[in-house]
Amino acid sequence: MFTLGLDYGTNSVRALIVNCHDGSEVGAWVTPYPSGSRGILTCPTNPHLARQHPGDYLRCLRRVVQGALGQAASHSGFSVDQILGIGVTATGSSPLPVDASNRALGTLPEWRRNLDAQCWLWKDHTSWREAGRITEVARQDHPEILARYGNTYSSEWFWSKIWHCRKVAPKVFAAAHSWVELTDWIPSVLAGITHPAKIRRGICCAGHKALYVEESGGLPDKAFLSRLDPKLAALRDRLYTEAYDATTPAGHLCRAWARKLGLPAGIPIAIGEMDVHYGSIGSGIAEGTLVKVIGTSTCDCAVVSTRKPIPEIPGICGVVPGAILPDLYSIEAGQSAVGDIFNWWAGGVLGDPSLHESLAREAEQLRPGQSGLLALDWNNGNRCVLVDQQLSGLLLGQTLHTTRAEIYRALIEATAFGARTIIERLREYGVPIRQVVCAGGIATKNPLLMQIYADVIGCTMRVAGSDQACALGAAISAAVVAGAHRDFSSAIKAMTSLRDTAYNPRTSHRRVYNRLYALYLILHDGFGGVQRDVDLAEVMKDLFTIRAAA
Amino acid sequence: MFTLGLDYGTNSVRALIVNCHDGSEVGAWVTPYPSGSRGILTCPTNPHLARQHPGDYLRCLRRVVQGALGQAASHSGFSVDQILGIGVTATGSSPLPVDASNRALGTLPEWRRNLDAQCWLWKDHTSWREAGRITEVARQDHPEILARYGNTYSSEWFWSKIWHCRKVAPKVFAAAHSWVELTDWIPSVLAGITHPAKIRRGICCAGHKALYVEESGGLPDKAFLSRLDPKLAALRDRLYTEAYDATTPAGHLCRAWARKLGLPAGIPIAIGEMDVHYGSIGSGIAEGTLVKVIGTSTCDCAVVSTRKPIPEIPGICGVVPGAILPDLYSIEAGQSAVGDIFNWWAGGVLGDPSLHESLAREAEQLRPGQSGLLALDWNNGNRCVLVDQQLSGLLLGQTLHTTRAEIYRALIEATAFGARTIIERLREYGVPIRQVVCAGGIATKNPLLMQIYADVIGCTMRVAGSDQACALGAAISAAVVAGAHRDFSSAIKAMTSLRDTAYNPRTSHRRVYNRLYALYLILHDGFGGVQRDVDLAEVMKDLFTIRAAA
Repeated sequence: MFTLGLDYGTNSVRALIVNCHDGSEVGAWVTPYPSGSRGILTCPTNPHLARQHPGDYLRCLRRVVQGALGQAASHSGFSVDQILGIGVTATGSSPLPVDASNRALGTLPEWRRNLDAQCWLWKDHTSWREAGRITEVARQDHPEILARYGNTYSSEWFWSKIWHCRKVAPKVFAAAHSWVELTDWIPSVLAGITHPAKIRRGICCAGHKALYVEESGGLPDKAFLSRLDPKLAALRDRLYTEAYDATTPAGHLCRAWARKLGLPAGIPIAIGEMDVHYGSIGSGIAEGTLVKVIGTSTCDCAVVSTRKPIPEIPGICGVVPGAILPDLYSIEAGQSAVGDIFNWWAGGVLGDPSLHESLAREAEQLRPGQSGLLALDWNNGNRCVLVDQQLSGLLLGQTLHTTRAEIYRALIEATAFGARTIIERLREYGVPIRQVVCAGGIATKNPLLMQIYADVIGCTMRVAGSDQACALGAAISAAVVAGAHRDFSSAIKAMTSLRDTAYNPRTSHRRVYNRLYALYLILHDGFGGVQRDVDLAEVMKDLFTIRAAA
Repeated sequence: MFTLGLDYGTNSVRALIVNCHDGSEVGAWVTPYPSGSRGILTCPTNPHLARQHPGDYLRCLRRVVQGALGQAASHSGFSVDQILGIGVTATGSSPLPVDASNRALGTLPEWRRNLDAQCWLWKDHTSWREAGRITEVARQDHPEILARYGNTYSSEWFWSKIWHCRKVAPKVFAAAHSWVELTDWIPSVLAGITHPAKIRRGICCAGHKALYVEESGGLPDKAFLSRLDPKLAALRDRLYTEAYDATTPAGHLCRAWARKLGLPAGIPIAIGEMDVHYGSIGSGIAEGTLVKVIGTSTCDCAVVSTRKPIPEIPGICGVVPGAILPDLYSIEAGQSAVGDIFNWWAGGVLGDPSLHESLAREAEQLRPGQSGLLALDWNNGNRCVLVDQQLSGLLLGQTLHTTRAEIYRALIEATAFGARTIIERLREYGVPIRQVVCAGGIATKNPLLMQIYADVIGCTMRVAGSDQACALGAAISAAVVAGAHRDFSSAIKAMTSLRDTAYNPRTSHRRVYNRLYALYLILHDGFGGVQRDVDLAEVMKDLFTIRAAA
């Protein structure tokens, strides 16, 4: 018995064929998106814009599944008819406009070249003004809902993006019958759904990104949306009234796509969840285990029992019942840029994306504090705990001898400090964190980063057994919805694992990082607007002293 | 009638043969120092250390003079016997230890490899602890003297360095009969002076760097020095009791060096002044004209009439009667790193020193504020107006799209903002500045920088006519001491000029830079410790808004 997990990432799509019995991976394939710069459509005059061409999703789908099937074919015991189900995961909030037949506008000839008609990728920040206004209005009208979103609505999310489209591209907005999150749209396409009203939307995106609250009647009411824009209120009728957790399938594989992919028709398709949420399942999430999916950005996931009242955690961008696992609150936090910052440094500034390895090798030779540098990890804004896209990066402590590798390490440390602010906030509000499990490319490829995180956070860091935790989580969900396991807890136990390597905090490093973290917090609270009267006089001098000691 | 100017710079020595009649340059030569990294001896474990091998000075002397003479030989009307005098200028404070025969310790076999026995280059910052302690003690014992030094004694200066040597290299200190500033030592060598007590020291270094105040008895008294270290008090007897302005020659060319250099024996050697001071003469300094010598660092010079009482300007590192021109107060200010910061970025971080040109070309395409970046120019500490070596660089406003050229421009702008803090401070204390004249390599080679400075400072920027303003100033001093002109004012009038190009402030740019400068001041005062309760909340947001407007 096998299931197929599909993971629509930022630069490519992955397919994973997994044995439901023990989680072993019998086929895996990656297909990069052909359009734009590494799959992302950008705009030279607007650094906030990041879109994807939905045609890429469909074009890559056949290729990636065939690749995985081709690999699996060589495994004894595998045959295509043993594939019991499909799970899909994707980046989010990445909404795309669709017409009345559920066709992505960006795939239609008249809209193909229009950036606003494409999928609005999670890291698109063009709608920061709209996010600010939504926050303002929600604070007045629905503070109880906003509290579940860390009290701030983000420019990365559903309503901000759609509203921005309505403002800057009214024709695209008018042509859109509905808007669908990518992670819901792919399952609907596979299920052959030709009307947006029939799409089963996952509670994951609905609850974490679209202000959907079941007990308050689902999506925000029309009065609220009208205060933003009457056209948004009108759109509400063409969105959805219900959202589902992973106990309900999104649909069943239609004949047309079954034929195209060479898979059995009619097999169930699990409900869509965002990559990090399924990634947390693929990494073995449970109460007390924080899962960090570290990639271009980082997403942190935790689950807590629904026996207690829903926690309201300021600056943590989402608490949603059932968004990861049925019957548990899902808590999502994250950092807007992690790997992206290192890529910016190596590729963007130094001009050679292949420098990572040599930079890491040099940076590894440095002791904590030795460079005298301190950085803020805000090159793409701050998602948690400040929830502010208008923040930017900072580097401090440069001398005339500061090296590129020292800066590389300072940037890693900055993301580690950012990670620590999140963990401290969660603990402060009663979310237990006894273990950190990491997934994503960086977790497996960058032991320097993992060790720095352990030293900064003061917690043992483990790495998920699978390199494809997000796709594996989707496959696990497919296994549950297909009946291969009776529930998620037993499926996770059977199908996930951890790598042997454990990164333990080292006391001497931890001591220095505690001092640096105190300085980080001064900058964090000062530039983040948490504290309005900051004394900076000793910051550079303390760095000087720490460097001298190192 | 001709004079020879010698300029001992940071990386090389220059010789210039000048026609005393019109300042035309008939011979010019540059010889790089052979030792270390571009002439500087550094220490991999201590980024503050910067020394020079005094053997380089002598080895290069013959070569550079011969080079200049060789060029001059092809000029009709020139002959060697028409060289009336020599002027010498050098970086400072760059003291070196000498033995009882006035031989530099660093040239003797037993000390040749000892970094502490070499010349302690102006930008050596190893003695920041000593500078702090000298400031502390001077504040108690001699606040009236310290007031002339911007109320803070620097780690770049004479006593800090010698005291640091006494601590870290007591054997070198014991072997040193005396310590001499490079700009005084070279004339003494040319004059064949074989005992340190016979060296005529210039008021320029004495007054600006060594706490020498004529009306208070010269160098600091023994009681004061004993409070620092009894051995410094003992050294005082082996230093000097009198210091001279440019009306007195340092000596006359001895036979031995006349032979080696092929110059007439017995011609007068002008008193030594530091490069920027002679550079300001070569740039046509007068009351109301600020001269900026922009190179690896920047030095600012102004002169004001001694008819008013001596101005006490906090954060301006020196006010000394006669240090530039006889009968005028010399005011010296400066920035610890300017060209060095751009070199650090292009060569040190990006790894290619030849990138300057392409970076400047790209940076020129940017409008003020367009990058969203803001930087502090403190990679080598802040000389004025904070006088604090324990400050460091800062870069703020980075996104994932920030380019190397944007950062390059932000670094130029940072030095411009730093330059503006100095000009505003001088004006605040009654020093008239109607015109800024720039000298140094960057002033002639980097029109982008000049225009940014004009826009940031709001003042027309002119460029000195000579590329070798420092050597020219030394040659002018030689012309005056040799009697070719009756005084400095007529010599300057005859022998200096300005280039035609004038960089005028552009209103639209000026407006944006005023906004950026306001943000710069928040960071400057905050990290500089001027203000203890800083509100940073709007800094990044303002940059965001300025960028959006640009």
